[in-house]
Amino acid sequence: MKQVVTFGEIMMRLSPPLNYRFAQAQSLEITYGGGDANVGASLAGLGVPAAHVTCFPNNDLGRAAAQQFRALGVNMDATVYQGDRLGLYFLEVGAGMRPSKVVYDRANSAFAHLDPAAFNWDEILKNAGWLHWTGITPAISATTAEATRQAIAAARRLGITVSADVNYRRNLWQYGQTAQNVMSELVQGCDVVVCSENDAEDLFGIVPEPGTDNKFVSVARQVMARFPQIKQVITTRRKTHSASHNGLKGIYYDGKQFLETVTYDINPIVDRIGGGDAFMAGFIYGALNYDNPQQALTFGVAASALKHTVHGDINLVTVAEVEEIMKGNTSGRLLR
Amino acid sequence: MKQVVTFGEIMMRLSPPLNYRFAQAQSLEITYGGGDANVGASLAGLGVPAAHVTCFPNNDLGRAAAQQFRALGVNMDATVYQGDRLGLYFLEVGAGMRPSKVVYDRANSAFAHLDPAAFNWDEILKNAGWLHWTGITPAISATTAEATRQAIAAARRLGITVSADVNYRRNLWQYGQTAQNVMSELVQGCDVVVCSENDAEDLFGIVPEPGTDNKFVSVARQVMARFPQIKQVITTRRKTHSASHNGLKGIYYDGKQFLETVTYDINPIVDRIGGGDAFMAGFIYGALNYDNPQQALTFGVAASALKHTVHGDINLVTVAEVEEIMKGNTSGRLLR
Amino acid sequence: MKQVVTFGEIMMRLSPPLNYRFAQAQSLEITYGGGDANVGASLAGLGVPAAHVTCFPNNDLGRAAAQQFRALGVNMDATVYQGDRLGLYFLEVGAGMRPSKVVYDRANSAFAHLDPAAFNWDEILKNAGWLHWTGITPAISATTAEATRQAIAAARRLGITVSADVNYRRNLWQYGQTAQNVMSELVQGCDVVVCSENDAEDLFGIVPEPGTDNKFVSVARQVMARFPQIKQVITTRRKTHSASHNGLKGIYYDGKQFLETVTYDINPIVDRIGGGDAFMAGFIYGALNYDNPQQALTFGVAASALKHTVHGDINLVTVAEVEEIMKGNTSGRLLR
Amino acid sequence: MKQVVTFGEIMMRLSPPLNYRFAQAQSLEITYGGGDANVGASLAGLGVPAAHVTCFPNNDLGRAAAQQFRALGVNMDATVYQGDRLGLYFLEVGAGMRPSKVVYDRANSAFAHLDPAAFNWDEILKNAGWLHWTGITPAISATTAEATRQAIAAARRLGITVSADVNYRRNLWQYGQTAQNVMSELVQGCDVVVCSENDAEDLFGIVPEPGTDNKFVSVARQVMARFPQIKQVITTRRKTHSASHNGLKGIYYDGKQFLETVTYDINPIVDRIGGGDAFMAGFIYGALNYDNPQQALTFGVAASALKHTVHGDINLVTVAEVEEIMKGNTSGRLLR
Amino acid sequence: MKQVVTFGEIMMRLSPPLNYRFAQAQSLEITYGGGDANVGASLAGLGVPAAHVTCFPNNDLGRAAAQQFRALGVNMDATVYQGDRLGLYFLEVGAGMRPSKVVYDRANSAFAHLDPAAFNWDEILKNAGWLHWTGITPAISATTAEATRQAIAAARRLGITVSADVNYRRNLWQYGQTAQNVMSELVQGCDVVVCSENDAEDLFGIVPEPGTDNKFVSVARQVMARFPQIKQVITTRRKTHSASHNGLKGIYYDGKQFLETVTYDINPIVDRIGGGDAFMAGFIYGALNYDNPQQALTFGVAASALKHTVHGDINLVTVAEVEEIMKGNTSGRLLR
Amino acid sequence: MKQVVTFGEIMMRLSPPLNYRFAQAQSLEITYGGGDANVGASLAGLGVPAAHVTCFPNNDLGRAAAQQFRALGVNMDATVYQGDRLGLYFLEVGAGMRPSKVVYDRANSAFAHLDPAAFNWDEILKNAGWLHWTGITPAISATTAEATRQAIAAARRLGITVSADVNYRRNLWQYGQTAQNVMSELVQGCDVVVCSENDAEDLFGIVPEPGTDNKFVSVARQVMARFPQIKQVITTRRKTHSASHNGLKGIYYDGKQFLETVTYDINPIVDRIGGGDAFMAGFIYGALNYDNPQQALTFGVAASALKHTVHGDINLVTVAEVEEIMKGNTSGRLLR
Repeated sequence: MKQVVTFGEIMMRLSPPLNYRFAQAQSLEITYGGGDANVGASLAGLGVPAAHVTCFPNNDLGRAAAQQFRALGVNMDATVYQGDRLGLYFLEVGAGMRPSKVVYDRANSAFAHLDPAAFNWDEILKNAGWLHWTGITPAISATTAEATRQAIAAARRLGITVSADVNYRRNLWQYGQTAQNVMSELVQGCDVVVCSENDAEDLFGIVPEPGTDNKFVSVARQVMARFPQIKQVITTRRKTHSASHNGLKGIYYDGKQFLETVTYDINPIVDRIGGGDAFMAGFIYGALNYDNPQQALTFGVAASALKHTVHGDINLVTVAEVEEIMKGNTSGRLLR
Repeated sequence: MKQVVTFGEIMMRLSPPLNYRFAQAQSLEITYGGGDANVGASLAGLGVPAAHVTCFPNNDLGRAAAQQFRALGVNMDATVYQGDRLGLYFLEVGAGMRPSKVVYDRANSAFAHLDPAAFNWDEILKNAGWLHWTGITPAISATTAEATRQAIAAARRLGITVSADVNYRRNLWQYGQTAQNVMSELVQGCDVVVCSENDAEDLFGIVPEPGTDNKFVSVARQVMARFPQIKQVITTRRKTHSASHNGLKGIYYDGKQFLETVTYDINPIVDRIGGGDAFMAGFIYGALNYDNPQQALTFGVAASALKHTVHGDINLVTVAEVEEIMKGNTSGRLLR
Repeated sequence: MKQVVTFGEIMMRLSPPLNYRFAQAQSLEITYGGGDANVGASLAGLGVPAAHVTCFPNNDLGRAAAQQFRALGVNMDATVYQGDRLGLYFLEVGAGMRPSKVVYDRANSAFAHLDPAAFNWDEILKNAGWLHWTGITPAISATTAEATRQAIAAARRLGITVSADVNYRRNLWQYGQTAQNVMSELVQGCDVVVCSENDAEDLFGIVPEPGTDNKFVSVARQVMARFPQIKQVITTRRKTHSASHNGLKGIYYDGKQFLETVTYDINPIVDRIGGGDAFMAGFIYGALNYDNPQQALTFGVAASALKHTVHGDINLVTVAEVEEIMKGNTSGRLLR
Repeated sequence: MKQVVTFGEIMMRLSPPLNYRFAQAQSLEITYGGGDANVGASLAGLGVPAAHVTCFPNNDLGRAAAQQFRALGVNMDATVYQGDRLGLYFLEVGAGMRPSKVVYDRANSAFAHLDPAAFNWDEILKNAGWLHWTGITPAISATTAEATRQAIAAARRLGITVSADVNYRRNLWQYGQTAQNVMSELVQGCDVVVCSENDAEDLFGIVPEPGTDNKFVSVARQVMARFPQIKQVITTRRKTHSASHNGLKGIYYDGKQFLETVTYDINPIVDRIGGGDAFMAGFIYGALNYDNPQQALTFGVAASALKHTVHGDINLVTVAEVEEIMKGNTSGRLLR
Repeated sequence: MKQVVTFGEIMMRLSPPLNYRFAQAQSLEITYGGGDANVGASLAGLGVPAAHVTCFPNNDLGRAAAQQFRALGVNMDATVYQGDRLGLYFLEVGAGMRPSKVVYDRANSAFAHLDPAAFNWDEILKNAGWLHWTGITPAISATTAEATRQAIAAARRLGITVSADVNYRRNLWQYGQTAQNVMSELVQGCDVVVCSENDAEDLFGIVPEPGTDNKFVSVARQVMARFPQIKQVITTRRKTHSASHNGLKGIYYDGKQFLETVTYDINPIVDRIGGGDAFMAGFIYGALNYDNPQQALTFGVAASALKHTVHGDINLVTVAEVEEIMKGNTSGRLLR
Repeated sequence: MKQVVTFGEIMMRLSPPLNYRFAQAQSLEITYGGGDANVGASLAGLGVPAAHVTCFPNNDLGRAAAQQFRALGVNMDATVYQGDRLGLYFLEVGAGMRPSKVVYDRANSAFAHLDPAAFNWDEILKNAGWLHWTGITPAISATTAEATRQAIAAARRLGITVSADVNYRRNLWQYGQTAQNVMSELVQGCDVVVCSENDAEDLFGIVPEPGTDNKFVSVARQVMARFPQIKQVITTRRKTHSASHNGLKGIYYDGKQFLETVTYDINPIVDRIGGGDAFMAGFIYGALNYDNPQQALTFGVAASALKHTVHGDINLVTVAEVEEIMKGNTSGRLLR
């Protein structure tokens, strides 16, 4: 199977144990994650050859981060070691009606200051069949946007499928270019996008047509009209009962058919971070391994539901475990 | 804003990790708390100037306890260091149908043997606008009852609002005076009381009038008739589905109007201890900051609901967090 | 009260903390358990004199295991120290729709290679009133089956009540004899059996009579017809909503009457392992202490429900705690 | 072998992890210990039948304490459950030039208020060959002194060897009788005492004869003259280089010969508490198993040296391990 | 006693448990510290009124840092909440011949970007008797240097003693001004400086006069000649046997006399960070409380030696504990 | 640089925290190691391309073990997943005069039952320049000996350097062939061996010639005479002062010159396991990177000394760190 290559920042995540608040913590648990890298690592766990491309500072923290992804089977050979600091984020895990809370400390990271010329995309993508990126990456800095641009261009040149989770984050995009301009250019090179109605409005000014009875289809159709390379638009619908209890389903439009999955009831939530990345990884797995999009979509959302029961950003589950959920075996009965 | 002063014992709380039973514990987690002090510390967290008055043994444990409250922003300058031991309580945290369990070891504490003359209440209360105490304090010993009496008298002299959570605990009150006599005298000096129907019956022999359709109002009206200084009677209604799942609302009567809040569904409960104190703190905050009692009551119960998601006796939440709950944002959606 | 004697393997259980997956663990929490020994230890906790008979390697791990059961009040004097290794099992605790998972590493344990001649059953059982074993023990090896046979024979000789949890485990039974043959012989000596419809079919080829409206009664009646010594057949009905949420009730047939209990709703589950053993221990306690089987059955299932809130294989609860559940006090209200 | 019976208080010990100071601790590690009980538990670990006699409150903490000693093989059947609280002590572990520090919280414990009539010493000692107590027990209260008196009297009646570690603690002895009077009466019934020169002076006003060149012998001779039942006086010499590094040897006088051991160099010290109790237990083991006092003394001090490498109050070592030290194998070479 | 005011950055320190390397850590222990703040907090622990002046980001991490210093009794009322991030440093604790290692991540902290105008030094210093700063603060940025300049100027205006630990750190000083220029200006306003021979050479180009037999005195004399306000130059001599074992003494010159202390042997080292700050705090305590510099110097180095046995940046010891060391009681004998 | 390939079993190591004894542990810390694999992982950390060849059970534990080595940069692509269980060993860490203790539980591991035909050595070694194995591997079973034989044969065929740590373990070698026969055959294919005088006597019956003044040289000369392929014999000299304090040096003979290193003083020891493997890895690194054996030997023993300060079996140090030690910088001075 050809490699899936992901590109983006990996941060150290620092989190008080259990449900402790920041002010109570005498220690912080470490994991590592990033929207795109989480997709790669989740795919590696599903048996798909995966490589991640990133930039780390050449210090103990950068090397430790690389180690964690290498452990999970992600090829990290294209890592550039350069720059000053590893991006961080602090996570306080909520419960019930108290939300989880993220404090970012990612400014001026090695990744933010990466040199696009350090990445030889034709070489990096030579064994790849799929390139995935997220809207977070071009939101960080002009150089990360440029590197994304070059990666997509190389992929198109090489005939590789490109997917993106457009993932608009208002509090990034501080470097002087607008999300609207940059993302419009970048998504032109994509075959598959995760894009919710909110994302479509924020990034592309696309709103549902008045009177439509399926707002997602209406939006997805307009997105596909504007960016003709896009063949599939997907997203999840999350019902947030509480920080500990969510419902989740997946939806899909490809210009012809609208698909949706059952809603999975997730209770209790062990770790919500990376749920969307697990969905993307699951959908890519499904696209590569099933011959119909309904199964790919269901695999994606089942994988994402399982992710919520796993600590950390990354979905440490197997294909067999996801397929049990797909078959309806959601009762969590003890396996001996 | 004027200071809220609280008076009462602070104990070290020792608790096995997670849901372990006492017999399984190889370590005990430490926090510190006490009904009145929890109100003070919660108020400090809400930005209200707060001072707590107590008596600690002059040893490492007493000093450590003071340190914890000072960290939270509570002024501890009036602490008397005297006596032999810090009161303790051991808490085993239940789950589902297994109740949490408290083993008290507070007898003969430094606080129980305090010298009332050690507290110069006119000095202590000179910057205060509000004095709060609970029925636990006069239940401990004749000297703690006497100190409470003097505190209330000083507050009345200085024109300071006085509140009490009457909180009847049958297994205290061992020093030869009856709760009924002592508390009847003390609540005469109060403006606001937390008093449930059970408390009213146990402490004052007051029962709902036959045939009333609002037992709380009936009882509160009688309480206010007997103790004319009291202007507001409040309490919470708790629906205990399990040790992990409760419903909570607040109720209020002021002689004219009966108020109640929505019921907050609390699931899962992280730590139930201090829930009542968080309600009192929230109501005091509301009384000082809103101009109608409905908002104060709702703030109190929303604060209390949030407290159940926080480890320890004390409600480590901000005004903004409580106000989100008041607005109905109880879905615990991730904050980035 | 006469002793209850249990016989079987005790394993070290190694489990990642919280809900971590095996691949994430940097440490494993240790407890010790085994189907039969869990029954003995749970009975000791209920105040019933209990002795457990087993075989441990004569090393630090075997001695540590013995120590844990001695701590719980189980008489371990008949332990044989012989052989090479302590059986182990690794437990990954699931959550929500992710199942818990057991990896056994028990082959070639000291117990599996025990010498039946090392156990003098007439001596071991001299103070006993009840012998309990599970279907796991004869499934391990020819020698453990032989030791079980001798234990039952001695019990019958001495007029001691014998119970068994037949507990068919397909992936054991690798030593060349069939479960069907061995178990049919052994259950002939039993007075009370835990046996579900599935067990009855797998072990004895007994299926419900067509058209019956109570399959359990139909099966139990046939079991009792085939093995006339058996006077009571019991089992639990478990509704597995998720790895964190189950419903549980108990059922009973004694040839004359069919009994069942209410369904206890267990949410959240702290530790599901040992739930069946807690049921058996509770039923034995009830049989020894109540004069009607309905109470014994209810005690058994209430004890089992409580077990799900306790970490480890063993039900660390008191008679008073179980009786509270029997009275319907399942609200988990804080005990001060 | 006949039982060694010990009598005295068992406390819960609460200690910050590692070398943290009290003010830094968010959790406390629990062990249980007491001067006399440590001797019993250490003997049980050496294979000597041991029973301990004490009084615990009938609550979860008292039962947990009993459980820990039962785990170690100590017979706890004579435990009386009565009274209000378990005695506690808090231990801060020093390092280098910073001393370890103990904060006692043992006043008003169940043991301090024990009823001497609750102990039937003739029954308790019926299988005993040796009774051991420490000077801490009669120092606690009049009733604990009385119970000690009765225990010694019964032992003498039954012809049992009696040993005492006289262990003078100035800050106990608060109940109105003097250590001098009480201890003088009690040691009259002893065959073996641990008594340093300081103890002899504080308790019996005995000082070395002027000009003697072996002060210990001079003092021991006078002790034996005053209390003719005493046949052996022993103690340790400790050289305290730092909280982490000590030297230790044992000395002995029996009226005829003065014996001493080599000095063991202990570095680093893992846990110094219980070092003296391990010495006493080792000496008793030696007295029961060797035929010359030099070996008994050496076993005692070698056992004590090893204790300093073991966490907790109790010496969890085997005879074989102590004998390796006695043979001079103190290099700590890895055992595979 | 008048307040000691310190000024400088407080960082979160993140450290793997025990001696684990960065690459092994799954969690990091948090403390907070900074060269100047450590002096203030250590003084507060010694009973000296202390206030620290700093700038934190207005987020949960900044507030948590403030909390920790408030707990220790440091007045934090002058804290400015402004800017984006809290400075961090990662500490890997060595052992034996493996050094401890610090990875700084402090660039662009809130403190580095502070606005000098936010600090009203006349107001801040109104109750102060002493101002202390370190060479780290002006090394961070032009604005922190400017704020230091203003603080010193205000102190001089108000007649307050000023001390500095000149502490040259080559890898700071990146903002375009030279350490030599900036520090020369700032130390002109100081009365007491910690300055080693290396610092003197690096910062002021001062080297020992050829042929001198006391290089420190030679250098100190030249420093005092160049900066006439300086009346005392002190520093420590550290003999680094290994990461776990150091020797430490203090030296002093005041233009007339050269003083030195005994060398304290520190083994094992629990935490070496903050050792120099503890020395400075101890010297300030001594200067305020003793009437001769020898005692002040000895107090400083004894305090520093003790600091090496305490986890974290801050010296959590009492005056009584330091004075025991001064008296030569360095044996770490257990305190009951 | 060409790959170094290692072959042998990897076990899960389970160890109580700190210095706790097995009987005290409620949790066990996990690392993974094996004599040969430790060499490979240490080399990967030094920047040498390394691949390890082993056999794991195809379960979560086998996959987790592979993950850990992949994290460290070891190529695990030749791993065979087959068989039933992962080998385990339990480690109790001693202190001072109490030795560390290993309890093996490795019998019947997947590796012990490996199928030699599953390894295609010509393929595995195609990029290799060096093959390393230890005497533990052929000691396990006839099939592991056979696989070792084939690996060596392939290496010789391909002209690859072969090294062995002969490492005689008496309690292995239970499968019916003698260590003497098997090892004599296998070392014939080796270029470099670690072989102490004890190993030489136990395995080859070689003893120092009478009257020799360098027993190691005498033995090494005879070994080289018997096995002419061997060109270098090396080993370490360890002086075991205590479990916490060792001295270590390296020695070497190549038929012409005898070399030795300085003795490194290691105090305190953090983790002694894997010290010999770190020496071997260091010597291989040195052989590949330096042009004289003295430097290689010194690098080996300096690396080994550093290993004793690192938790776990594997030497997580860099070339720069080892070279600092070689330069004599053993003072462990803090690195900022």
